[in-house]
Amino acid sequence: MLSKAQISFITSLQHKKFRKQHGLFIVEGIKSVLEFIHSAYVIDTVYTTAETLTKMSNLPHKIKCITTSESDFKKISSLTSPQGILALIKIPTDDAVNWEEIRQQHIIALDNIQDPGNLGTIIRTAEWFGIKHIFCSIGTVDAYNTKVVQATMGSLSRVQLHYTDLIPFIKQSKMTLYGALLEGKSIYQTNFQKTGVIIMGNEGNGISKEIIEQINHAVTIPRIGEAESLNVAVATTIFCSEIARQKLTNNI
Amino acid sequence: MLSKAQISFITSLQHKKFRKQHGLFIVEGIKSVLEFIHSAYVIDTVYTTAETLTKMSNLPHKIKCITTSESDFKKISSLTSPQGILALIKIPTDDAVNWEEIRQQHIIALDNIQDPGNLGTIIRTAEWFGIKHIFCSIGTVDAYNTKVVQATMGSLSRVQLHYTDLIPFIKQSKMTLYGALLEGKSIYQTNFQKTGVIIMGNEGNGISKEIIEQINHAVTIPRIGEAESLNVAVATTIFCSEIARQKLTNNI
Repeated sequence: MLSKAQISFITSLQHKKFRKQHGLFIVEGIKSVLEFIHSAYVIDTVYTTAETLTKMSNLPHKIKCITTSESDFKKISSLTSPQGILALIKIPTDDAVNWEEIRQQHIIALDNIQDPGNLGTIIRTAEWFGIKHIFCSIGTVDAYNTKVVQATMGSLSRVQLHYTDLIPFIKQSKMTLYGALLEGKSIYQTNFQKTGVIIMGNEGNGISKEIIEQINHAVTIPRIGEAESLNVAVATTIFCSEIARQKLTNNI
Repeated sequence: MLSKAQISFITSLQHKKFRKQHGLFIVEGIKSVLEFIHSAYVIDTVYTTAETLTKMSNLPHKIKCITTSESDFKKISSLTSPQGILALIKIPTDDAVNWEEIRQQHIIALDNIQDPGNLGTIIRTAEWFGIKHIFCSIGTVDAYNTKVVQATMGSLSRVQLHYTDLIPFIKQSKMTLYGALLEGKSIYQTNFQKTGVIIMGNEGNGISKEIIEQINHAVTIPRIGEAESLNVAVATTIFCSEIARQKLTNNI
């Protein structure tokens, strides 16, 4: 049985303040928890119901696992349909950026993305297309937010998120900067280089002025209909897909 | 002042049963309501607060407009931050399909999409890329669901939605059928024809077996990372974008 203090500690991690204070975040669901266990992330504790534990044949011995009753589990879960397993995982401390590695890739930079669902979808989609690093402005929604973690469907375990002041970062990167803007060269006529930073802006305001000034290539997604804008996760998808296409068809 | 009966009538339209019974759905927000007013949709009634009405200079005279108090408006709005304007709009009765028109286009067919946010994003993105018709299986979430309408950001006013039994529909269409599947030819190596049906499947189960049997081209989105799947709105985006690219670069 979990104590009141344990329950209140776990649920407090649904709030950024307490995640930051304790350096822990929550992952729920069998598939997602297993993906984090088999990733570079460090698992603090796994809470599981006896029923779910019987389905988890491959839980490594070194993992601290606490079995809870169904009713206690409902108290710690934030899902409407709890899956009987929840892990507390250490938020990675942001090590120094390995520039040599970063400069050989396409990476994504997010300028103040606010919606957890959008950030989760961006992480999941970027990971599908092999993107390994996402740099977020300090004002971007917390990637360890429970809603973001759920929306990534486990992909967060395979993408490194970095929160940083974007302007010094992009200046220091010395990489080619592609900005997603409403005015620019068509993405379908843009020959992407082998490496570069794809910069996506805030849902309402787009990329901030100071960052636009640094951009090397203003790239736009041609509009055929009359919609005023595209959702930012949709726009990021189109960038990831077009770069993948150019790579796979040997254009870059 | 709105009567209790009026308020309960309007809020009842948040439920599919009552939308179907009265043939009406709800649109909220200045921009979205104006887009529907200037579309082929028939407006039943517009409810607005006095403050919002002053911002609406271009409301056509023929439209029945009822001014409400701020407190009444909060009772009829389903938004957490009500924008002071809400329209009741007639759900179009599905006329006979104009095959001559349909067969000259790319259209989308949705096989049991369940999530309102996904359907809303699909409608908004498809409209950006000039898609004019979306055919939904009977089991697909209702496009006149308030959450779907909000997620389309007004694009629903410019795309025709049809609910139909998909198997007889695709058979009768005699169009080339492209199915989004996990196994198939890479989308980047698929030469799309000038017209065709893009078929997208349910979030959990994909395209149903009976429909897969009818498909002419199994098309897949190449995976570079390790994510198990892509969100269906993201996958639809990649299809719309790639077809647009092939059209705009004169490949088709």
